[in-house]
Amino acid sequence: DPFSVSAHYLTASVPGPAVIRTQTVRTGRTLSTGQASLFQYAEDGSEVERIRVLATYGDLDTLPDDVRTTALPPAMPDRDHCLGPSDGAPRIPGSSAITDRLDIKLDPATVGWAIGAPSGKGEMRGWFGLADGRDPDPLSLLLTVDALPPTSFELGLTGWTPTVELTTHIRCRPAPGPLRVAITTRNLAGGFLEEDAEVWDSADRLVAQSR
Amino acid sequence: DPFSVSAHYLTASVPGPAVIRTQTVRTGRTLSTGQASLFQYAEDGSEVERIRVLATYGDLDTLPDDVRTTALPPAMPDRDHCLGPSDGAPRIPGSSAITDRLDIKLDPATVGWAIGAPSGKGEMRGWFGLADGRDPDPLSLLLTVDALPPTSFELGLTGWTPTVELTTHIRCRPAPGPLRVAITTRNLAGGFLEEDAEVWDSADRLVAQSR
Repeated sequence: DPFSVSAHYLTASVPGPAVIRTQTVRTGRTLSTGQASLFQYAEDGSEVERIRVLATYGDLDTLPDDVRTTALPPAMPDRDHCLGPSDGAPRIPGSSAITDRLDIKLDPATVGWAIGAPSGKGEMRGWFGLADGRDPDPLSLLLTVDALPPTSFELGLTGWTPTVELTTHIRCRPAPGPLRVAITTRNLAGGFLEEDAEVWDSADRLVAQSR
Repeated sequence: DPFSVSAHYLTASVPGPAVIRTQTVRTGRTLSTGQASLFQYAEDGSEVERIRVLATYGDLDTLPDDVRTTALPPAMPDRDHCLGPSDGAPRIPGSSAITDRLDIKLDPATVGWAIGAPSGKGEMRGWFGLADGRDPDPLSLLLTVDALPPTSFELGLTGWTPTVELTTHIRCRPAPGPLRVAITTRNLAGGFLEEDAEVWDSADRLVAQSR
């Protein structure tokens, strides 16, 4: 299972074929580390590296049950009172076919951007599921942390926010059922901002954190 | 200048010689990415990799001045009312010669662990300076985020906390003068915890964030 995954985004990916090359960096008793690079091909046939990832893996099932937390699941309406595409909610600008694979319902309090009335707060909240109804697993959490619209929309900024770096920590195997995602931005400066995502499962456990 | 640095810790370093090997991953117009590995030598002379780092660099001086933030500097006493070694404050367990190079004064509210009375909150706060009086710079911020005692001490946990992964984001060039560091842990689960550090400069700007 992934425990800690750090990705640096090098160049903008385009839809189409890609090659991923992997390397085992270290194999340990409880934790092992690997590296991967995703390549695509330029017009002249040369390889262009898109993303490079360092990741540490372990076995979530072997971890002790102890939890000490001050983190609480986000306060947001039931799934039925959140907004998805079938509720006339706006499509995420710039999004592509990938959103058809997802079942995202946004907290109405964080979709002001869609009607030209952003809250001015760097927050985004929603329910996350996979469109085919599959339950979440540790690997799918890596998608969950990065699937909501950017908090910058609620800060009143338009345009896409390219990612420089994304690190995700997986904390336990998620229980079946829909996930809640809360993303906050504390600080925007010099054209860069951080997004802190927390993912909660149906058993109210914090299953993933990312920045 | 470092913008975003992700380090995965592979094996425990020991005091002594080390070799660092670097690789340029991508050179871009505004951002460039590199990779580095730190090696030490085993008793049989073979190399052992200690840390592998992916890092994205740019020029902080070219960034626009815009700041939108809800983040506030930590509430803590003046430097003179915080506790350093000369105030009889305890040495950080397990710490070595490196602490002699630092000038750290801890908020009394977060040193309960030193007298067997941890607060139970996952918080650590303090003033940070370099012992030789040098002003902070973007590179020294990478040390600042990791220099305070672990928040686990205030959670009542003893023993050292090995680091799996540490990502640091540098947000601007720090103003001269002492820095304030605030570290919080929202969630401990399965024997792993996150530490979120924020570093503030003398001009009240958030200059670095790490997890």
